[in-house]
Amino acid sequence: MTHWLQDQARVRERRGLVRSPLVRGVNPGMIDLASNDYLGLATDPRLAEAAREAIAMWGTGATSSRLVAGTTELHLELEHELAHLIGADAALVFSSGYLANLGVTTALGGPGTLMVADEQCHASLMDGFRLSRSEVKNFRHNSVEDAAKALANRIHPRAVIAVESIYSVGGDASPLAELLELAETHDAMLLVDEAHSLGVAGTGSQQGCGAIAGTRLAGHPNVIVTATLSKALGSQGGAVLGSTLVRDHLVNRARSFIFDTALAPPAAAAALAAIGIIRAEPWRAAAVHRNAAALSAQLQPALQRLGTAVDRSAGAVQSIPMPSAEAALAASKEAHTAGVSVGCFRPPSVPDGVSRLRLTARATLTPTDIEQACAVLRSILERTS
Amino acid sequence: MTHWLQDQARVRERRGLVRSPLVRGVNPGMIDLASNDYLGLATDPRLAEAAREAIAMWGTGATSSRLVAGTTELHLELEHELAHLIGADAALVFSSGYLANLGVTTALGGPGTLMVADEQCHASLMDGFRLSRSEVKNFRHNSVEDAAKALANRIHPRAVIAVESIYSVGGDASPLAELLELAETHDAMLLVDEAHSLGVAGTGSQQGCGAIAGTRLAGHPNVIVTATLSKALGSQGGAVLGSTLVRDHLVNRARSFIFDTALAPPAAAAALAAIGIIRAEPWRAAAVHRNAAALSAQLQPALQRLGTAVDRSAGAVQSIPMPSAEAALAASKEAHTAGVSVGCFRPPSVPDGVSRLRLTARATLTPTDIEQACAVLRSILERTS
Repeated sequence: MTHWLQDQARVRERRGLVRSPLVRGVNPGMIDLASNDYLGLATDPRLAEAAREAIAMWGTGATSSRLVAGTTELHLELEHELAHLIGADAALVFSSGYLANLGVTTALGGPGTLMVADEQCHASLMDGFRLSRSEVKNFRHNSVEDAAKALANRIHPRAVIAVESIYSVGGDASPLAELLELAETHDAMLLVDEAHSLGVAGTGSQQGCGAIAGTRLAGHPNVIVTATLSKALGSQGGAVLGSTLVRDHLVNRARSFIFDTALAPPAAAAALAAIGIIRAEPWRAAAVHRNAAALSAQLQPALQRLGTAVDRSAGAVQSIPMPSAEAALAASKEAHTAGVSVGCFRPPSVPDGVSRLRLTARATLTPTDIEQACAVLRSILERTS
Repeated sequence: MTHWLQDQARVRERRGLVRSPLVRGVNPGMIDLASNDYLGLATDPRLAEAAREAIAMWGTGATSSRLVAGTTELHLELEHELAHLIGADAALVFSSGYLANLGVTTALGGPGTLMVADEQCHASLMDGFRLSRSEVKNFRHNSVEDAAKALANRIHPRAVIAVESIYSVGGDASPLAELLELAETHDAMLLVDEAHSLGVAGTGSQQGCGAIAGTRLAGHPNVIVTATLSKALGSQGGAVLGSTLVRDHLVNRARSFIFDTALAPPAAAAALAAIGIIRAEPWRAAAVHRNAAALSAQLQPALQRLGTAVDRSAGAVQSIPMPSAEAALAASKEAHTAGVSVGCFRPPSVPDGVSRLRLTARATLTPTDIEQACAVLRSILERTS
């Protein structure tokens, strides 16, 4: 097997697709346009204090699976508040968003279920479909018409339409209202991954509560939501939200819930504190959108020269298509050297095969941060071909 | 889909297989024979302090995937120490043991790989095999002969033998030395899950370092190890250990690594502190074995009357087969009411279909704890039929 591993390594090398983690030191000078810490809560003292208290009360680990001895009162409180935030009847917390998506797709899937999924759905959803042995029909990105075609004349007793409310790489939004109508027409479940929307999307008094809260989708019997606690909530873990019937089903059937150690108490406590802050400080979600608009405006001229354009995205993510994987990697490295951390996405991490830089318009970026970062990026993009 | 969910709930109810998490409050009076906190480290003040320091330095969450901005210096230090503890060249940390097992099996698997797996392998390994689209041949539990048959005349260019060094539910050990010979003969990888062995198994100066450390398997090019940080290490997360070639392969190919938020810094720091304690305090692993022997001796008479017997297990787990799922559940509930927390395993969480109680002989149980717990359990078992 060693020879095969060596061959695989050589192929990656030849294609310019070798990945290795860039190690992050403690460097307060770096401008962070790379992470998913959308609201700046991962280093908020209130989350830190909540995590410290949970360690004192419950310990550093949950010590076993949720069904054996891993469910503390803290886990139930987190589930209650999370359900309330998003407007669902019930929530079930997993130790990661990946496992939440595997759990819900495998527990609802199977040979009797048709999975109708946006072609840009996250890897964890795609993996869950495969693991569930469901038939999968992918539809063209954000095309309700194509999703309807996939559902027409189905022979499966059950169907699930799976989307992300805001897409992770492109940053664009899903047509949720139309998809719910489609789900109702076909007696299908609509599964919405709010990973990049929770904390960022939502309007009026629901600002920051995600794309579902306050809409007709909230609490709808045909809607199931998944979320991560590791992005806007500044912690770790994931959750599935829906009816109590759905929650009970997952408790009994989701292997990634049953056979996994429960989320560590400090992570549960930090996420719980973050929910309170999202409610109390809607200015954070507003700042994300203001910063996204500023990034977009300041980069537009350079991008137009490059023959591309960055649309104002629905959420925090600004996606900059690059001419090649090598160009994307070189640009991100140069930005990093100049003190600006940006995401570099290359195949197979890009749903459309297009390498890009990915910028997250985080709430706590200052106007100066954005100006400096854009100056660096403009200079790099002007030399990119 | 609601009708189907309701039907499923009714079937569970009828079969007596409804699960719901027993909520754990802060109750210092309970005797814990249920959790996997084998060494009592989840509430150790040194782990708590390490986690608090990590929160102050790095924040409550890792903020993104390992390849984007989620790899801190702390993650690399943890990987280095973990590899050193187990005797591997390199380690790669995941946000859960479940995801580590999915990652290694999918990255090594595929149509060209034959997976030869002990029939009692953990759900996360089984899920990984299926996800990888590998052909899977299960062999009879712990039968090297049957594993050899599965490998004979294989047509696949690659093969992996997958086992747990100590099995999660039964607590028995794997014949690792013979399996390594088999792997060498067939140019196969031997994948060993050390989840229930790390911190507990190991002899001499390697006491507590797991079943691999200090043996011919340590650092062997045909051996890959997986581990959890959420059991003996009192934290959260998982790891894959092997050659640097294997690590690089996983960094580039394991979707559950690439597309998942990195392990939260406090969890990484707590696991790192636990490694130091395992090295400095071998009495903890020794206490696990002493307590396992005491539990076994004090329960033996009651079990013999029940027509069953509990073998002295290789690790911390004592498995008590029960006559039915209902009897197992009733016994565990009665024990809980009497102040003793024990694991209750029923289908589908038992690899052999036999419902049982599962006792973990944790290092920090006192002789009085064990006497009290055994008195409660004897009384329950005497009334079990």
